[in-house]
Amino acid sequence: MNLIVQKYGGTSVATPELIKRAALRIVSLKKKGYDVAVVISAMGDTTDRLLNLATKITDRPSGRELDMLLSSGERVAMALLSMAINSMGFPAISFTGSQSGIVTDTVHTKARIKAVRPYRVQEELKKGKIVVVAGFQGVSPEHEVTTLGRGGSDTTAVALAYALGAEQCEILTDVDGVYTADPRIVPRARKLDAISYDEMLELASSGAKVLHTRSVELAKQYKVLLHVRSSFNENPGTIVKEEEKQMEEILVRGIAYDDSEAKVTIREVPDRPGVAARIFGSLAQANINVDMIIQNVSDSGTTDMSFTVPESELLQALGCIEKLRTEMEFKDVVADNDIAKVSIVGLGMRSHSGVAARMFQALAEKGINIEMISTSEIKISCVVRRPEVEEAVKALHKAFELE
Amino acid sequence: MNLIVQKYGGTSVATPELIKRAALRIVSLKKKGYDVAVVISAMGDTTDRLLNLATKITDRPSGRELDMLLSSGERVAMALLSMAINSMGFPAISFTGSQSGIVTDTVHTKARIKAVRPYRVQEELKKGKIVVVAGFQGVSPEHEVTTLGRGGSDTTAVALAYALGAEQCEILTDVDGVYTADPRIVPRARKLDAISYDEMLELASSGAKVLHTRSVELAKQYKVLLHVRSSFNENPGTIVKEEEKQMEEILVRGIAYDDSEAKVTIREVPDRPGVAARIFGSLAQANINVDMIIQNVSDSGTTDMSFTVPESELLQALGCIEKLRTEMEFKDVVADNDIAKVSIVGLGMRSHSGVAARMFQALAEKGINIEMISTSEIKISCVVRRPEVEEAVKALHKAFELE
Repeated sequence: MNLIVQKYGGTSVATPELIKRAALRIVSLKKKGYDVAVVISAMGDTTDRLLNLATKITDRPSGRELDMLLSSGERVAMALLSMAINSMGFPAISFTGSQSGIVTDTVHTKARIKAVRPYRVQEELKKGKIVVVAGFQGVSPEHEVTTLGRGGSDTTAVALAYALGAEQCEILTDVDGVYTADPRIVPRARKLDAISYDEMLELASSGAKVLHTRSVELAKQYKVLLHVRSSFNENPGTIVKEEEKQMEEILVRGIAYDDSEAKVTIREVPDRPGVAARIFGSLAQANINVDMIIQNVSDSGTTDMSFTVPESELLQALGCIEKLRTEMEFKDVVADNDIAKVSIVGLGMRSHSGVAARMFQALAEKGINIEMISTSEIKISCVVRRPEVEEAVKALHKAFELE
Repeated sequence: MNLIVQKYGGTSVATPELIKRAALRIVSLKKKGYDVAVVISAMGDTTDRLLNLATKITDRPSGRELDMLLSSGERVAMALLSMAINSMGFPAISFTGSQSGIVTDTVHTKARIKAVRPYRVQEELKKGKIVVVAGFQGVSPEHEVTTLGRGGSDTTAVALAYALGAEQCEILTDVDGVYTADPRIVPRARKLDAISYDEMLELASSGAKVLHTRSVELAKQYKVLLHVRSSFNENPGTIVKEEEKQMEEILVRGIAYDDSEAKVTIREVPDRPGVAARIFGSLAQANINVDMIIQNVSDSGTTDMSFTVPESELLQALGCIEKLRTEMEFKDVVADNDIAKVSIVGLGMRSHSGVAARMFQALAEKGINIEMISTSEIKISCVVRRPEVEEAVKALHKAFELE
């Protein structure tokens, strides 16, 4: 029997009516002869509401208790979805992350999946049941409830799809698939029929919110076929899969942007070995996600060092740097949260030259100044002023003939 | 180190502010040198809200999924309470029913505690932590989440207090203790300083809502000292304990009433052996809680049989009886949900005669008709018209000199 794992995001199960709609869709897949395992997120903005409750109690909740709190959201959704499926005459059963054998490390609120041992899921699938699994949560080796961080349900779905040997992992969401650019900014953006794991990875880590980076990494590693599609219609979405020869023919697959980062510049850092290691080691220890890092060549014994971090972690990052001041003897630290990052992603870059120049040219023509540049084999990212980022996305979408 | 188990009901933790207040109270107990384990209910009307969500999905949710759904409520409350205690500088940790070793049978939504194996709770108490335990929930031998039914948190608290060898089990609630009658009906009702397990049991099963019957049964069985008191002030409440000699001197300890039941009368049932067993066996199989049962002496080969059930189970009960119609050949079934039960409870009844007569006289003087009577060693209950029940409570409170 072929198995499909379907994942429903929070907006797709935000109300009892939507849950019933999801149940109908699940049942229709079952009727087609598939075994179905469903991974579900908390309803609508539940997670935010729970976080808000915690804020009213304390500014610094313990990670363990926060995970205990947040993991309640999926329990509600999964029980309701399971009831809805049952009420349509198809046996269903819901399992928590722990019951599904989603074993993680012990890092609360940002746990990583270490193993999936879905024995109970397999047993119930074998009995012909539809199994509903709580996304976003797992259990540590010490039997503590953990959560996987934002977007963690995607990761649960991919890990489960691999562990169960699923034919496909459908990510059902509130958009029709992966687009060449955010359609709210570029109305002429096109939905992509297919995209490679690597391209999707770069788009996701560059701000495209349709999939969580970690889930794409995992899908790539275990060759899990992803199908990103809308939960509100039956249209085919975007297939995320292994790279094929003809994929390289496309220079730029899509444009992504991210306006949730802030830039930190440390000025006049002594230019000696070990300085960068000390700074970024300290940030890593504080679990701060550093994205781009730029250091200019120095000619005066000191250098300026810039990096970007999520805006939400800016204060924490500044605190980290401040603690290094006496040791480092840098001049000062400047924070700037009026920036945004725009990125172009495409396998074709590997075999074509001049892509970067074309990008910079397109931005220059619009009078947009580039503040930082970072490149990978299949991605170029530029930091620009935040108010200019939409203009930048539009210009690049046009320049690379994506309309 | 002496240990106290405190149980906070839903109204005592309905908002983040109230949770912080509960945390302060818990911390002050800890400061006095006690080890503290806290059993907590879901916040305010959470359980009702969750039930309502389920109703929007289906009329007949599976018990297993309902338990999965409902058990999320205490997780939220316990994580928040634990955060609040932590933020006051006292280490706290929360455990689900499963993590606390609350092992139940497999009857979903009405499970009974079979064993308490609080190893993790004990371990953390030993480390000096305040342990917060989810009330109302447990885990079946098949590793399924179960719930204990309405008022189940009281039962969790008593079972845990026994298993941990607690000095006392404090039930913190929104009233000051156990009263001689409902103070909303009888403004001159008095708070009792102490009451025996048996009296409390009869009051609870007669409609006094301050404690759940099952929790009192358990407390009696294991001799757990209960202290029912308000979470909103520091006043001493009511101690529920083993019977003492002088307790018998009080004829009637308190008056209780219950207006949530309905009466069913089966008319002209053939008066032959096995009929009652068949009827009540059938109701028991459907898990319907039958309270009072009356059968009159017959002189015509048939008899009328009346019983009361919770109003919420009336339709189901009627369905059960209807199925027996061909087999039983009774005439018809009459349902009446405009009734209420008023009860007087007191150890003194055992050694004093004339109590029943005094009760009937007091009701007669107010022109209140008695429809059914049922007695136990320390309780007399009468069914009256529902609109007359408040008048009945007042009359009895006065007649037995409880003011």
